Amino acid sequence: MNYKKLAMTQHKKLRGKIGIELKDSLDNPDKLSTYYTPGVGAVSKYLAENPNEARNYTWLNNSVAVISDGSSVLGLGNIGPQAALPVMEGKCMLFKRFAGIDAVPIVLNVHKAEDIVSAVMAIAPTFGGINLEDIAAPICFEVEKKLKDSLQMPIMHDDQHGTAIVVLAGLINSIRLAEKDLNDCRMVVNGVGAAGVAIIKLVKRYAPGIRIIAVDSNGIITDQRKDLNSTKQELIEKRIIMSNLAGDLSAAMTDSDIFIGVSRAKTLTRKMVRSMNNKGIIFAMANPEPEILPDDAKKAGAFIIATGRSDFPNQVNNALAFPGIFRGALDNNLKRITLKHKIAAAKAISELVQNPTPEYIIPSVLDKNLVPAITKVIT
Amino acid sequence: MNYKKLAMTQHKKLRGKIGIELKDSLDNPDKLSTYYTPGVGAVSKYLAENPNEARNYTWLNNSVAVISDGSSVLGLGNIGPQAALPVMEGKCMLFKRFAGIDAVPIVLNVHKAEDIVSAVMAIAPTFGGINLEDIAAPICFEVEKKLKDSLQMPIMHDDQHGTAIVVLAGLINSIRLAEKDLNDCRMVVNGVGAAGVAIIKLVKRYAPGIRIIAVDSNGIITDQRKDLNSTKQELIEKRIIMSNLAGDLSAAMTDSDIFIGVSRAKTLTRKMVRSMNNKGIIFAMANPEPEILPDDAKKAGAFIIATGRSDFPNQVNNALAFPGIFRGALDNNLKRITLKHKIAAAKAISELVQNPTPEYIIPSVLDKNLVPAITKVIT
Repeated sequence: MNYKKLAMTQHKKLRGKIGIELKDSLDNPDKLSTYYTPGVGAVSKYLAENPNEARNYTWLNNSVAVISDGSSVLGLGNIGPQAALPVMEGKCMLFKRFAGIDAVPIVLNVHKAEDIVSAVMAIAPTFGGINLEDIAAPICFEVEKKLKDSLQMPIMHDDQHGTAIVVLAGLINSIRLAEKDLNDCRMVVNGVGAAGVAIIKLVKRYAPGIRIIAVDSNGIITDQRKDLNSTKQELIEKRIIMSNLAGDLSAAMTDSDIFIGVSRAKTLTRKMVRSMNNKGIIFAMANPEPEILPDDAKKAGAFIIATGRSDFPNQVNNALAFPGIFRGALDNNLKRITLKHKIAAAKAISELVQNPTPEYIIPSVLDKNLVPAITKVIT
Repeated sequence: MNYKKLAMTQHKKLRGKIGIELKDSLDNPDKLSTYYTPGVGAVSKYLAENPNEARNYTWLNNSVAVISDGSSVLGLGNIGPQAALPVMEGKCMLFKRFAGIDAVPIVLNVHKAEDIVSAVMAIAPTFGGINLEDIAAPICFEVEKKLKDSLQMPIMHDDQHGTAIVVLAGLINSIRLAEKDLNDCRMVVNGVGAAGVAIIKLVKRYAPGIRIIAVDSNGIITDQRKDLNSTKQELIEKRIIMSNLAGDLSAAMTDSDIFIGVSRAKTLTRKMVRSMNNKGIIFAMANPEPEILPDDAKKAGAFIIATGRSDFPNQVNNALAFPGIFRGALDNNLKRITLKHKIAAAKAISELVQNPTPEYIIPSVLDKNLVPAITKVIT
């Protein structure tokens, strides 16, 4: 199906994919007086005197802001806030459809970390949670850290952590199928932006013995390189990644067990796949075109290949994680989404695949058990 | 009916009065691919290249932010953002119910004019219009002016202009019933905050001959007073109000034709009403208790008495104006709501009352013709 053409037609027809619904009618003066003046004054007065009750009398218990400055959207890059709006509206659809969460798109006309932080802090009392979306690295790291330091509410940059959680879920099943131990593996992560960094940190936390080689557009990240931003430096300083190997992606791939691509189309060659250890696992998640096409990877001997695409098996899709995570965080009035939550969510997702095969390592986003299974472990 | 009790019960039961609705289902992978990835990428790419098309492919054509810092809420004053949330949610209900507009409450954790302006500017690309609400004077004046200077979109501080429009609508019919000319009248405005200033400016623009006396908590505003903020000074300097009369509210009321109260309960006495000219018109809009009760005003000889209350005749209710005004502004992609629009809206509202009587000078908010009639003149 030509989704691009269909998307243009449908978006133009609907002129906005989401709207506001009322939880009760306003058909008579009594309802008006109950939900607006004079009745609402009593509720506001009560909340002024009992601030902790706000979530029981307003939408705070179920509202999430989906916030982006449009600086790193899908495969499109820095397209600005209003061009990013259809993506954010789509995300809000997913929040509602999968988790019943009332998510509101908020696109920002500011792009510096401190300005994004100020804007989000200003509007934060409106929402029960904050989903950061499509904000470019390295600004996204600073934004998320500052917001988490300042606000007592669930905050998650989905491009980082949503991706990392689903990758870990897929890896857990892949490794089981390959009959390996993640702690003994060598994993190459190609692309060290928002998603890459989060994947590296989460997988290392889950399997501390794993050897991770991080590769960016200038090659393997080593302590000899002078062009590293503070996030990449931190990965080396904290010994989260290996730093004794230099060279290009080919060098990194040799004798590796896992390739995680969050980079660009066609960066992985058949030759590189052939240089991997036995039962190589490849997550080629560049969008819309993966680092290597599944057929090519298979022909070069890959054991498992996953992509970000819905038209291939094993779709690594953020939408598997964020609805259940925010559902659990809101239901339990959590002040923070922790690494423990993320690992628990990854395990819960992986366990939904009862009989994994190389073509079925991750559940479908339409799996009815998905959100309940994740929600249960976000406590 | 005990609306306060009912409001508490209903708000606790609903836990939020509004939510997000989807304009299409997401029941199968094709819909996911159309409204989210990969389809949505085509729409975002198109909007990046054609920024003016955003309102045809997103909710921009129908979304309004209802923004408050909670600094001046109903009769409650400065109760802060989260306690103000029920009021903003209620306002959003009205937007949807009366004008089909998708309005989103945004409550702000900042209270200085420049910080409110920065926050609103940052999130502005998300919305087709901005309704400012319950922001205290004089900060509200600066906020609204700066936003209008910077943003090309419909922006209205409803406490100012919504109130002024409905007051003017009521005055038009009242004056007709009294067989007077507004240009020959003397009008006392008691309370020179957000609503008072806007009423003074709009009525003076509509009837330049009118003599307006403004009274605040320190008495009649004159050029001799040293305690005036810049907004009050401007009213004198631009000769919008009279400045040759000094004294208290009693002095102002003597020989006046109209009293407009946006002040506090029980500030208007029967004696003051008796000192008015023949066929005195009284809009006593303090909430929840008016400046004078209708019965008392009538007994003291008032010809027409209006209040802000739904349980008396002639309710001066902001909800009469804002839905139709924003509906027209969005439909016609207006960049600004002008004084002309406000006067046209007031006339349209007044004309809906085909046979006004002293007990019926303003239509009901439930009048089905209301929003269409206003929308028609906001072009």
